[in-house]
Amino acid sequence: MGRTSDARERILAAAQTLIELHGYSALGVAEICKAAGVPKGSFYYFFDSKEQLALAVIDEHWAVQRGDWDRILCGDDPPLQRLRRLFEATEAGQRAGQRSCGTVSGCLFGNLALEMSNQAEVLRGRLQEIFEAQVGMVEKVIAEAQERGEATVADPLDAARSVVAQLEGQVLFAKLYNDTRRLDALWTNCLSLLGATAAGGPGLQTGAAGE
Amino acid sequence: MGRTSDARERILAAAQTLIELHGYSALGVAEICKAAGVPKGSFYYFFDSKEQLALAVIDEHWAVQRGDWDRILCGDDPPLQRLRRLFEATEAGQRAGQRSCGTVSGCLFGNLALEMSNQAEVLRGRLQEIFEAQVGMVEKVIAEAQERGEATVADPLDAARSVVAQLEGQVLFAKLYNDTRRLDALWTNCLSLLGATAAGGPGLQTGAAGE
Repeated sequence: MGRTSDARERILAAAQTLIELHGYSALGVAEICKAAGVPKGSFYYFFDSKEQLALAVIDEHWAVQRGDWDRILCGDDPPLQRLRRLFEATEAGQRAGQRSCGTVSGCLFGNLALEMSNQAEVLRGRLQEIFEAQVGMVEKVIAEAQERGEATVADPLDAARSVVAQLEGQVLFAKLYNDTRRLDALWTNCLSLLGATAAGGPGLQTGAAGE
Repeated sequence: MGRTSDARERILAAAQTLIELHGYSALGVAEICKAAGVPKGSFYYFFDSKEQLALAVIDEHWAVQRGDWDRILCGDDPPLQRLRRLFEATEAGQRAGQRSCGTVSGCLFGNLALEMSNQAEVLRGRLQEIFEAQVGMVEKVIAEAQERGEATVADPLDAARSVVAQLEGQVLFAKLYNDTRRLDALWTNCLSLLGATAAGGPGLQTGAAGE
């Protein structure tokens, strides 16, 4: 099998789906290969181990998500509007996942962080990098909002960590209750965490900023 | 082996430790019995399945935690002080776990919610009940704070969900970064989520409420 084959992509896609459905530990190489429709030998042609595969799944998922986050968070709209769009996109993504597989699958990185942090240092390290990048992207937007007098936080980095923590916590509940409406609270909570209710003026709480 | 034996308790304790270390899927009955120092037959004397064991571990952990939460949240101190003590107790618990096993193990219920929600409906249902109970306990305290003019929220139930979501999100990061200082933000974030900065008067943000 040559490198021009799409076997690697099919293995990655099958692995991501299976990790989202069953987690990492429950995953077997034979099951991945069956779902991907490739012989078991081709797995070890592309990946040294299940851990290497998980890293590749994480990297591929982050490459796509980072593109989405960049597009949403680095636009020309006012900063808080961009943050709101990020939450809307998160909710839309979880709804799409629920429609396609019947259940809210949650955040791949959050799922793996809780399942694997204490078991595989290489996965922990990669997930730390990704969440740091997410927090950094949110921090820049918060700093912009603060410069415009639309947010009042003591420290944009701490505030960004809290916004991303709120996102992960609400996604956890969306998954547990299989209900994406849990994510409706993200925007209001974000405004509260950023002191934006008081500073942002009328309209922010009522939905005008995201219209 | 009679019912007076402590084998059941030893199996439960070993299972909780192993679930905290490796998650549920990675857990094997043989491993549990070895860690508990009991013959494999005694496992099936007490538990029909690994799932039944997980339910028992969850129930036992919640019985202890519910007692702690009740003691902290139903006291005579002002309501926001009680919420603050809950966060301090959470941080202390995670620090104690880190000291004893080297890593922050996170929230057993949050870990299992992300790992198992979409795989075992019986576990999902029990975890939903527990988080609903937690949210209900926090909601009562928020309603008290609101009556005293110390919190300004549109809906105490939604606010309680957001506070518990923030708790789960920050515990996720404490586990991922193996750093309990991530939980330091909980109190300030709680005040922000409850609109307590503006309404609670001086002292709340500076630490006086928890002294």
